[in-house]
Amino acid sequence: TQNYRITLLPGDGIGPEIMAVAVDVLKIIGQKFDLKFDFQEALIGGAAIDATGEPLPAATLDTCRNSDAVLLAAIGGYKWDTLPSNLRPEAGLLGLRAGLGLFANLRPAKILPQLIDASTLKKEVVEGVDIMVVRELTGGIYFGKPKGIFETETGEKRGVNTMVYTESEIDRIGKVAFEAARKRGKKLCSVDKANVLEVSQLWRDRITQLSQEYPDIELSHLYVDNAAMQLVRAPKQFDTIVTGNLFGDILSDAAAMLTGSIGMLPSASLGASGPGVFEPVHGSAPDIAGQDKANPLAQVLSAAMMLRYALDQPAAADAIENAVFQVLEQGDRTGDILSPGTKLLGCRAMGESLIKAI
Amino acid sequence: TQNYRITLLPGDGIGPEIMAVAVDVLKIIGQKFDLKFDFQEALIGGAAIDATGEPLPAATLDTCRNSDAVLLAAIGGYKWDTLPSNLRPEAGLLGLRAGLGLFANLRPAKILPQLIDASTLKKEVVEGVDIMVVRELTGGIYFGKPKGIFETETGEKRGVNTMVYTESEIDRIGKVAFEAARKRGKKLCSVDKANVLEVSQLWRDRITQLSQEYPDIELSHLYVDNAAMQLVRAPKQFDTIVTGNLFGDILSDAAAMLTGSIGMLPSASLGASGPGVFEPVHGSAPDIAGQDKANPLAQVLSAAMMLRYALDQPAAADAIENAVFQVLEQGDRTGDILSPGTKLLGCRAMGESLIKAI
Ligand SMILES: CC(C)[C@H](C(=O)O)[C@@H](O)C(=O)O
Ligand SMILES: CC(C)[C@H](C(=O)O)[C@@H](O)C(=O)O
Repeated sequence: TQNYRITLLPGDGIGPEIMAVAVDVLKIIGQKFDLKFDFQEALIGGAAIDATGEPLPAATLDTCRNSDAVLLAAIGGYKWDTLPSNLRPEAGLLGLRAGLGLFANLRPAKILPQLIDASTLKKEVVEGVDIMVVRELTGGIYFGKPKGIFETETGEKRGVNTMVYTESEIDRIGKVAFEAARKRGKKLCSVDKANVLEVSQLWRDRITQLSQEYPDIELSHLYVDNAAMQLVRAPKQFDTIVTGNLFGDILSDAAAMLTGSIGMLPSASLGASGPGVFEPVHGSAPDIAGQDKANPLAQVLSAAMMLRYALDQPAAADAIENAVFQVLEQGDRTGDILSPGTKLLGCRAMGESLIKAI
Repeated sequence: TQNYRITLLPGDGIGPEIMAVAVDVLKIIGQKFDLKFDFQEALIGGAAIDATGEPLPAATLDTCRNSDAVLLAAIGGYKWDTLPSNLRPEAGLLGLRAGLGLFANLRPAKILPQLIDASTLKKEVVEGVDIMVVRELTGGIYFGKPKGIFETETGEKRGVNTMVYTESEIDRIGKVAFEAARKRGKKLCSVDKANVLEVSQLWRDRITQLSQEYPDIELSHLYVDNAAMQLVRAPKQFDTIVTGNLFGDILSDAAAMLTGSIGMLPSASLGASGPGVFEPVHGSAPDIAGQDKANPLAQVLSAAMMLRYALDQPAAADAIENAVFQVLEQGDRTGDILSPGTKLLGCRAMGESLIKAI
C-alpha cells in the first residue's frame, strides 16, 4: 500500500459540498488501486477569517507543507468583500501560492464532446479545442513592489502596482511550458505585450532563447490583446500557451469559458519541489452554497490531476477521468450543464453516480 | 460653408488604401452637407520611420495640433518589428496619444445584422450586442514609471513596468464613461482587478464615489478575468464598460472579435480639448497591403465618428453610417466579410459603391 498525506482545504461557499464528493471518490479509488490517503482538513479563505481572523492561518500553511499534495475547493464570498484587502479570502490564496512557491499554474481548457452544446461558440469553432494555459503564478504584477496607495505632493492619492519579471523567473516557467508542450501537441504560444512593456520584451527574449533547447517545439508569440481575439476567433489554433500572472489570469478564464462549462475544469499549481495545489477553476458560488446544487466534477477532476501530477498515479487518474466521462455519457448533469434530454442530479447524487461508475 | 482642417495619417500597410476611400467619402459628404475639409497629410509609424528615422516626427504632431480632428488609418508591420522599441511604429502611436492628451478611447463593438453569421458565437448569443468600451488611454502601465530593463545585484536582468493611476486620472475617464452610458443604455460596468491590485482598489473607490453624481446610471463592477469570461458567456449583459489602459486594450479587442468582423469597427480617442484621433480598430494587415483587398468600412465609419464627436455634424455622420448599412444590405462585401450569396468587391470598388449610396 502506498500512503499519501493530503491536505484538504474546502474553503467557502460550495467548497465543502464539492470537496466531500472528491473525498468519497478518492476513497473508492484508494481501495481499487491500493492507495491510502491520510486526509487532513485545514482552514483557508472566509472560513479561516471567521474562525481565526486570518485568511491563511500559519497552521494551515504548516499542514500543507507537511503533505504530499493539497486539494483546494474554492474561496471567497460577498460576506468578506468589504474587509481590507490583506484580510480578504483572496489574500489567503495568494499567500498559499507564495508560501508554497507555486510558480506554475496549469489550466487546461478542453471541450468535452458531451457538453459541446454548452459553449456559446459555434460547434465547428470549438469542436476538439484542447488548450493548456501555463500561467506564471508567484511573480508579475501580483507580487511586484512598490505597491500600494500613496499620496502625491499635491495631496492626491495614487495607486501603484509593479509588473516585474527576472530572467530566472521567466526561464523557470518557460521550461515548465516547453515540457508541457512536448507532452502535448508540441506547439507553444507565448503571450506578452512586448510592443509596449519592457517587462514583456525581456519575457519574449528569454522565451525565444530558451526555445533553442526545445527544437522539437514550435514556438510563436502573440500580444495579449491579439491572443484574446484569437481565442474567440479560432481557438483550435492553440495547443499550449505560456504567459505571466496577470495575462494568464485573464486568458485562462477566457479559454475556460470557450468550453461553456467551467464547472468541469480543474487546475494544478506546482512549485519546484514540495506539494502542489489542485483546485477547480470555478469560484465558490455563494449564491447556491449549501443547496446541493453544485457541480462537483471540476473538483473531482482536480483530484485526478493531483493523482497524475503530484502522486504519479496515472492509472488512478485515468480511472477518475473515465468515470466522469461515463456519467456524462449516461446523461447525468448538474444544473449548470443541464441540456434537453439529460438528467438533473444534485451534487451528492452526482457523487454517487461517479462512485457507481468507478 | 463650415471649414474643417483634418489631418490624415495613412500610416502603413493597407492604411493608404482605406484612407483614400474615407477621403473620397468625406468629399462627397462635404458637398452634400456644405462642409469644406482642408486635408493635410502627415507621416506616422513605419512610413515615418522610413522617411525620417522617427515614428512620430515633430512636424506630424504639430500638424495634428493645428487641426480640428485627426483621421488615422493603421500603423506597423513586420518590417519594423526588430527595431528597438522606442523607434518602432507603436511608439509613434503612443507618442500621438500622449502628445495630444487623448485620455479617452471609445471603442464600440456593435454587431451588424447583415454580418451576424461572421461571428464565431451563436446567433442567439450575439444578436443585438452593442457594447461601448471606454478605455483610459494615457495612463496605467503603458506610461507608468519606473519602467525598463535593469540589472539586479546578482547580475540578472529584471524587466519592470508600473501600473499607476491617480484619483484625477480615474475621475476624468470615469466622467467620460458615465456620460457615454447616459447617452446609451444607462448601464456602466467598471472593470478592474481590485481583489489583487491596489491601483484597482483606488480605481473602484473613485468610480463608486463618482457614481453618486450619476444616480440615473446603474453601476456594476467586475474583475477583469470575470469580465473576459462574461464577454464570451453572455455579451448582451454589457452596455458601457469603463476600464484602464491595459485591461481596455485586451477587453476591447475581445469584444470587437465577438462581432466577427473587426474590419467594420471604428474608434475615437479624445482629450480634454484639442483634436481627437479617429481610427479603425483593426491593424495594418501588411499581408494584403497594396492588393486592393482591404475592407475600408471601419475607416469610413471612423470618419463618421469624427463627424459626430469632433465636428458635431451628426447628420453627416448618419449619412455615412446609412450608406455603409445600405451597401451591406445590397450584399457588397470585401473578402474578410464575404459569405455565401454576397458579392466580393475590392477596396476601391467598395468605396465606389459607398459613394453611389450617398
Ligand atoms: C481570486 C484571485 C486572487 C485569483 C487570481 O487572480 O489569481 C483567481 O482569479 C484565480 O485565477 O485563481
Ligand atoms: C499597437 C498598440 C501599441 C496598441 C495598444 O496596445 O494600445 C493597439 O493594440 C491598440 O489597442 O490601439
